[in-house]
Amino acid sequence: MIEPYIHKIQYYETDKMGITHHSNYVRFMKEARIDFLERIGYGYARLEQEGLASPVISVSLKFHRTTTFSDELHIYVRVIGLTATRLHVGYTMECDHAVVCVAESEHCFVDSHSRPVSLKRVNPTLFETLASYAEA
Amino acid sequence: MIEPYIHKIQYYETDKMGITHHSNYVRFMKEARIDFLERIGYGYARLEQEGLASPVISVSLKFHRTTTFSDELHIYVRVIGLTATRLHVGYTMECDHAVVCVAESEHCFVDSHSRPVSLKRVNPTLFETLASYAEA
Amino acid sequence: MIEPYIHKIQYYETDKMGITHHSNYVRFMKEARIDFLERIGYGYARLEQEGLASPVISVSLKFHRTTTFSDELHIYVRVIGLTATRLHVGYTMECDHAVVCVAESEHCFVDSHSRPVSLKRVNPTLFETLASYAEA
Amino acid sequence: MIEPYIHKIQYYETDKMGITHHSNYVRFMKEARIDFLERIGYGYARLEQEGLASPVISVSLKFHRTTTFSDELHIYVRVIGLTATRLHVGYTMECDHAVVCVAESEHCFVDSHSRPVSLKRVNPTLFETLASYAEA
Repeated sequence: MIEPYIHKIQYYETDKMGITHHSNYVRFMKEARIDFLERIGYGYARLEQEGLASPVISVSLKFHRTTTFSDELHIYVRVIGLTATRLHVGYTMECDHAVVCVAESEHCFVDSHSRPVSLKRVNPTLFETLASYAEA
Repeated sequence: MIEPYIHKIQYYETDKMGITHHSNYVRFMKEARIDFLERIGYGYARLEQEGLASPVISVSLKFHRTTTFSDELHIYVRVIGLTATRLHVGYTMECDHAVVCVAESEHCFVDSHSRPVSLKRVNPTLFETLASYAEA
Repeated sequence: MIEPYIHKIQYYETDKMGITHHSNYVRFMKEARIDFLERIGYGYARLEQEGLASPVISVSLKFHRTTTFSDELHIYVRVIGLTATRLHVGYTMECDHAVVCVAESEHCFVDSHSRPVSLKRVNPTLFETLASYAEA
Repeated sequence: MIEPYIHKIQYYETDKMGITHHSNYVRFMKEARIDFLERIGYGYARLEQEGLASPVISVSLKFHRTTTFSDELHIYVRVIGLTATRLHVGYTMECDHAVVCVAESEHCFVDSHSRPVSLKRVNPTLFETLASYAEA
């Protein structure tokens, strides 16, 4: 189990209603995903050097509670699924042990020319590492 | 059929990959939704005055193409479904007549004390107006 | 006199105090500056094609009033000064004919390799055009 | 001497040029300022409870270097000046011990009804604390 990524809500992330604007949660997903990759040994610099990127092809978020300035969001990232060409990531965001947002994102893999590639073929080591984190 | 809302991509909405950061599309959905409500006679000021808000309870987006600085995004908004307590909105975002992103959002209705309310009961006129735009 | 650039305040640009977060005004400056260059015939695409960029080396802003969601900001851009290597731009932002923010930015010129260049030398036509808008 | 506040540059804070968009530095100033107040015992919650806010009346920033995704910005905050009704704050932002940005902000003090107040009168303890950090 990977440690949660912590994001502290900034003032400019709140809106007129006094709560964190929902569009920011998509950014928190990205922060947590990059942190997850770093923790498993695939920091952004390494991926860039290996000429690999994983663009977002879909995101979905369900909101259960609101948060506001200075709240600490604990984001738990997990690999829901992995195929040669697709990565499916899950996120559970909690504040004070209560679920705030549950989200998912799907990604493909592209090379440095933005051409879709099979991760299994171009980077079998990362593929195996991610697979080892995938849910049964 | 409501006219599309147009959002011109700003420089600060692009990222290091040279494309519009995907988190911004959630903001475009909100812009288009507010514009839609305004066009059907329920601008933000009126809703606020009537003590009504419609918080987002979920969003989902599928990305088909990327966009970049100065692209013009045409966003078509439609009411997918409406019940007394839930609004379901659909968005099709196009650039140069090609689909960029297809998205949905779900909303509940709350009063000025953030208490969930039945739109049908507290604001039957808006309920009927939205219903008249709902897909068959 | 160039027409003002109009920016309508978005919901996500407001913060918990119910007003437009001050950091956004730096973005409005950029929007207005790009719009100004476009109106005088130097749209972003053309500048990029000519291998020229004008990075920001300083910005300063004074706030006189606040704004909030759905306010229309009229931004008047002017060339305060121009030398071979520096551009100095001024901005007056108004809402309902009252001054909201007065700002300035300074820029250098760089080529496509991010090397500082003399605008007068590499692009005398743009230099002359900008100079014709400079204050006496 | 107060410890620097650290901000790690996020992917969505970069732009199409591959660098941190300059508008974000105004947000980093706010993060660092709030952190500074917290470290000297005046966290946001306490200030809000005491019915005090300190709106920004001006900001100015000079950029010396660029930063990019995953860079760690060390932000040193200091009190440049303090009067009964004005606070003047300075910021030095460094990355790898090289200065990236030098900035300043000015603030007034308002009560919970947004009326300007004398900090010295309404909150002499905070006034003395801030004064003790002010440069000679």
